[in-house]
Amino acid sequence: MTISLPSPELIASFAEIVGPANALTAPADAAPYLVESRGLYRGTTPLVLRPGTVEEVSLIMRLASQTRTAVVPQGGNTGHVAGQIPREGKADVVLSLERLNRIRDIDPVGNVIVADAGCILEDIQKAADDVDRLFPLSLGSEGSARIGGNLSTNAGGTAVLAYGNMRQLCLGLEVVLPTGEIWDGLRRLKKDNTGYDLRDLFIGAEGTLGVITGAVLKLYPKPRGHQVAFAGLRSVEDALMLFDRASSLCGPALTGFELMPRLGIEFTTRHIAGVRDPMETTHPWYALIDISTSDSADGAERMVQDLLEAGIADGLVENAVIAQNEAQRKALWHMRESMSPAQKPEGGSIKHDISVPVSSVPVFMAEADALVSKAIPGARICAFGHMGDGNIHYNISQPVGADKQSFLDRWREINAIVHAVVLKHDGSISAEHGIGQLKRDELAAIRSTIEIDLMRRIKHAFDPAGIMNPDKVLRED
Amino acid sequence: MTISLPSPELIASFAEIVGPANALTAPADAAPYLVESRGLYRGTTPLVLRPGTVEEVSLIMRLASQTRTAVVPQGGNTGHVAGQIPREGKADVVLSLERLNRIRDIDPVGNVIVADAGCILEDIQKAADDVDRLFPLSLGSEGSARIGGNLSTNAGGTAVLAYGNMRQLCLGLEVVLPTGEIWDGLRRLKKDNTGYDLRDLFIGAEGTLGVITGAVLKLYPKPRGHQVAFAGLRSVEDALMLFDRASSLCGPALTGFELMPRLGIEFTTRHIAGVRDPMETTHPWYALIDISTSDSADGAERMVQDLLEAGIADGLVENAVIAQNEAQRKALWHMRESMSPAQKPEGGSIKHDISVPVSSVPVFMAEADALVSKAIPGARICAFGHMGDGNIHYNISQPVGADKQSFLDRWREINAIVHAVVLKHDGSISAEHGIGQLKRDELAAIRSTIEIDLMRRIKHAFDPAGIMNPDKVLRED
Repeated sequence: MTISLPSPELIASFAEIVGPANALTAPADAAPYLVESRGLYRGTTPLVLRPGTVEEVSLIMRLASQTRTAVVPQGGNTGHVAGQIPREGKADVVLSLERLNRIRDIDPVGNVIVADAGCILEDIQKAADDVDRLFPLSLGSEGSARIGGNLSTNAGGTAVLAYGNMRQLCLGLEVVLPTGEIWDGLRRLKKDNTGYDLRDLFIGAEGTLGVITGAVLKLYPKPRGHQVAFAGLRSVEDALMLFDRASSLCGPALTGFELMPRLGIEFTTRHIAGVRDPMETTHPWYALIDISTSDSADGAERMVQDLLEAGIADGLVENAVIAQNEAQRKALWHMRESMSPAQKPEGGSIKHDISVPVSSVPVFMAEADALVSKAIPGARICAFGHMGDGNIHYNISQPVGADKQSFLDRWREINAIVHAVVLKHDGSISAEHGIGQLKRDELAAIRSTIEIDLMRRIKHAFDPAGIMNPDKVLRED
Repeated sequence: MTISLPSPELIASFAEIVGPANALTAPADAAPYLVESRGLYRGTTPLVLRPGTVEEVSLIMRLASQTRTAVVPQGGNTGHVAGQIPREGKADVVLSLERLNRIRDIDPVGNVIVADAGCILEDIQKAADDVDRLFPLSLGSEGSARIGGNLSTNAGGTAVLAYGNMRQLCLGLEVVLPTGEIWDGLRRLKKDNTGYDLRDLFIGAEGTLGVITGAVLKLYPKPRGHQVAFAGLRSVEDALMLFDRASSLCGPALTGFELMPRLGIEFTTRHIAGVRDPMETTHPWYALIDISTSDSADGAERMVQDLLEAGIADGLVENAVIAQNEAQRKALWHMRESMSPAQKPEGGSIKHDISVPVSSVPVFMAEADALVSKAIPGARICAFGHMGDGNIHYNISQPVGADKQSFLDRWREINAIVHAVVLKHDGSISAEHGIGQLKRDELAAIRSTIEIDLMRRIKHAFDPAGIMNPDKVLRED
């Protein structure tokens, strides 16, 4: 289909729905909505709309449907695959959910919170905390990411091991369909087997099937015990064996098991204010182990001691520290969260967000390292991440002194090398960030014809006019 | 569409795919596949096919697609809503997965098992146990239910509180589509955000979108501590408060919180061999509390003690026993599992499988009880189930001495009364059993037009010819 540039009259009709103050057309006003954090994609738009109610979202989609206007829903604009960025050279209207940011209800006995899609993740965490509950989704950008985006990308983060990703944390959804109709699926039920799973279809669809406007999210009792340990390890193999021991010993109390390379510790201590190496010894690899227990602080303390003692006795752990207080726990997590930003001052970084079966992490790392080092001698591999989920952020910093742009020009080539190893081990080329524009064509290339065809059929069934975040996830045909 | 009776030639072509021994046409051979356990539905079929490989399933569906023959997939035939039973008076071919029962792979380090859809649930549990792992799905019919059916109905059971239902226990699927094409989605990944969630669409679709032929299921470390307690309670309100305390104290170690009424204890002790009342005192309500801990048996012991002491101190628990050994733990669970069979000797029973938000269980029970008792004076309400999931099997035994058939004739009328209360509290009319034929028309009546329309669009996108388990979940149009 061709999407024509909206006429001034059409722009005025859209603006009327939200009021002039919330219909941005001046380039300077629209600019923040057009570029994603890494600067890899820059889109164009004639109009940014900021509706304040679900009804306004509905009216916008109704008009878009009638006029075949493409619409790109956007939350906190923290996505890493440009799913939230309008296409370049097209006339996609940006629909920002940022004003739809009301917490509608919170029920600590029922352990649910009902919130607008534009609520900032951190505000949901705080609202839960205020009623002595935990909302466990936690990720680097939680201060600006919005839950509609978290849902649309099925966000993961650092507590997936114990609580699952956004899909597992959501009980119900409210979605405005491409036609403007509102699907009210705001259920608060733990069990409900009544027909096809529409909820999980919208979750992770990156705004291509409809606009998520509200959600029922699960809350949890707050753990009473919390311990964080940091262990120096010889190899990724040892990290896998330690993870296996930790899962078995701690069960669901193991809330995090994060892998970091020595290089990552060097980058963070060098570039991130306040980060210090917690050990005097150095080690090729490190694990951050997070344990939360429901019953008492003693339980977590005992578990972490038992685990580290067993790890040392087995020769898996070379050295270890246990955080002695909340400040030290935060400092260890801060180091982990700084792995990605600390790469910036080191020049260009080619990034991957991959997963493989947990037991294949060591062999994946060894094979990928060999191929990348061969392709770019001197490349500094800083692979870190959620070991317990098999999810590695396999990032590669440019060789020291290399030209940043010519290094970054090899992004697709290096992706192809790394993703070939991922696929060899039946892995995923996007473990938690989604497909968006960045990985769209690659997805089509690696998945079976029948799988892409099934996805297309769903897309056409929900959005026959192709106005809902077009060219994301799947290329429009 | 009209589906015509298959010609002898077509039956012969189907039979050729699986071999004559596995193509049943004689009424006596087909009979066991045509009636479900409660005897509410009895279907008709010209042919039962028992393929032994995925390729045979594919060939069957290809031929069915070419000839517009309706096909009904069937696992262990333990479903409660007649989703697995062919329609009466039509010519649906039954496709039994029972010979597709091979465990393909088991990886204790990666914590996955890959199995054919026809594997019996209990065999999966045993295979996991053999490698010192737990497959947590557990339900009354586990000795005959097959995992393809468990997946197609998103089965729940007694460990949902800690481990979720089948949807949460499945990482990947293999599905034969209505055309005979095979979708290979047998992934072993904990995190994979690459496009629409096809897996969760097939899970719970009751065989109306394709035939599940294989699955990757999650395994867990075996808990080392296990305790079961049985508490006598004054009211459902007190049960809710005790559940709230238990969740908070035990966190994910709380693996079961089952509610039972006094009447259920009387029925089971009266009719089920070996069941004895574990207490000398009697109480209006009972909770079975199941606690599993990863680290040690001591942990579970301490938790259950702490919980019961707190419950008694708060006046929530009137009396309690803790199982002293594995035999006693099994006996308590056996009593719980016997709630449903124990109703049979008491005459007719009108059943419901509902859920409401957990905090609404007490008010739901009070309102439903009042309305049912008014409609059928003397009706004996034996409502029990998964309190922690808000999932109550709200079963009603006939009044003593009433005529069984005239009581059962009021099934739909009583369903309507109970389900109205469910809907008032934003609940579900099918928490874990699915829709099938039994609740199909009711689903269409209670859900919004847009929701039914979205489901229809998915059905048409996947099965345009309408041959895949037709008239289940949605009525064919």
